[in-house]
Amino acid sequence: MKSYFISFEGPDGSGKSTVLKQVVEQISPRLKTQYLVTREPGGSKIAEKIRQLILDPVNEEMSAKTEALLYAAARSQHMFETVIPALKAGKVVFSDRFVDSSLAYQGAGRNLGIAAVKQINDFATSKIEPDLTIFLDIKPQIGLARIAQERAGQEDRLEQEQLLFHQKVYEGYHEVNAAYPDRIKIVDANKALNLVVADCVKIIANHLPADLLKD
Amino acid sequence: MKSYFISFEGPDGSGKSTVLKQVVEQISPRLKTQYLVTREPGGSKIAEKIRQLILDPVNEEMSAKTEALLYAAARSQHMFETVIPALKAGKVVFSDRFVDSSLAYQGAGRNLGIAAVKQINDFATSKIEPDLTIFLDIKPQIGLARIAQERAGQEDRLEQEQLLFHQKVYEGYHEVNAAYPDRIKIVDANKALNLVVADCVKIIANHLPADLLKD
Repeated sequence: MKSYFISFEGPDGSGKSTVLKQVVEQISPRLKTQYLVTREPGGSKIAEKIRQLILDPVNEEMSAKTEALLYAAARSQHMFETVIPALKAGKVVFSDRFVDSSLAYQGAGRNLGIAAVKQINDFATSKIEPDLTIFLDIKPQIGLARIAQERAGQEDRLEQEQLLFHQKVYEGYHEVNAAYPDRIKIVDANKALNLVVADCVKIIANHLPADLLKD
Repeated sequence: MKSYFISFEGPDGSGKSTVLKQVVEQISPRLKTQYLVTREPGGSKIAEKIRQLILDPVNEEMSAKTEALLYAAARSQHMFETVIPALKAGKVVFSDRFVDSSLAYQGAGRNLGIAAVKQINDFATSKIEPDLTIFLDIKPQIGLARIAQERAGQEDRLEQEQLLFHQKVYEGYHEVNAAYPDRIKIVDANKALNLVVADCVKIIANHLPADLLKD
């Protein structure tokens, strides 16, 4: 069965979840096959429990390596329970974050090294990669200002990190983007929401195999 | 500061926790330095939460890779919060289970491969290894019969596995033991408890650096 795996990436405050929702609303009526929208960390019962553990602001003494391994564990379960079965059933899968987030946040942001974090994620995913990744590009200062406005005082543990951390994450993302130019397409997320969504829809429509799209 | 790191390994039902307790009671009065007794998975607040997630019999759909990554995450936190600070403070650390358990249970028992599981654990531990490992050797049939007698109906998720799984774990342990003959010492755990404890105490006393022991 033909299937297609699309991930959405971007710094905090890039509007990723909102964009993904609207992109799916626009693209799904044009799909010939079924589709699935999921997110990381999470997307399954066990993975959601792991997600809670990672994001709980109480766990402030968590080591960087523990955090990276927990994300990989949640991802492994998400693959096993959700993503792989959907791909095997020939669905188009849209995932809010995937391995690139760990490379940027834990590899670069937490200074664990992109190669080391990639290795544990290769184990978690059995090296299954998205066919296409949309990177919503926005500078961390702007992304963080958006979050501060929307969720004042309710940021999770990772969002509470200082600007320096988010700058390292942003640089990490660009290192990853440069390493996988065929897979990762960069979209300017500074534009108005409807324009960002239109850019994403156009890229996806151009990349989806023709036999997954209605005429 | 001089320190020393001892792990205890063995199949389920090898009497490991009881033996460890009595060994520490006998050896600790002879130590010149402070000591710490800890266990895996667990040994810190976050690691205990991860332990609960792993061992909860409700989580029966957990994938083998998720399980291996959660053990590695708990171990990473245990190293960061508990083991490394104790070693830095010059203590003798006794740990109930360590990396060899993952190599045997997840690498061999779950068929993930000992080398692949070693790799994610090297990340978790920063390649810190015990100075000495005591392996309590007992055939899985005998170990499982002991557990069945002691804890009828209250086995955790891993103890509930079938004999075939525990046989693979046992073979995995022996593969690991053969790979690290200098570090891992095998003790016959079929003997009476006091004899097993005496064997362990003798091995530890012979291996501890002389300046950590009272005259």
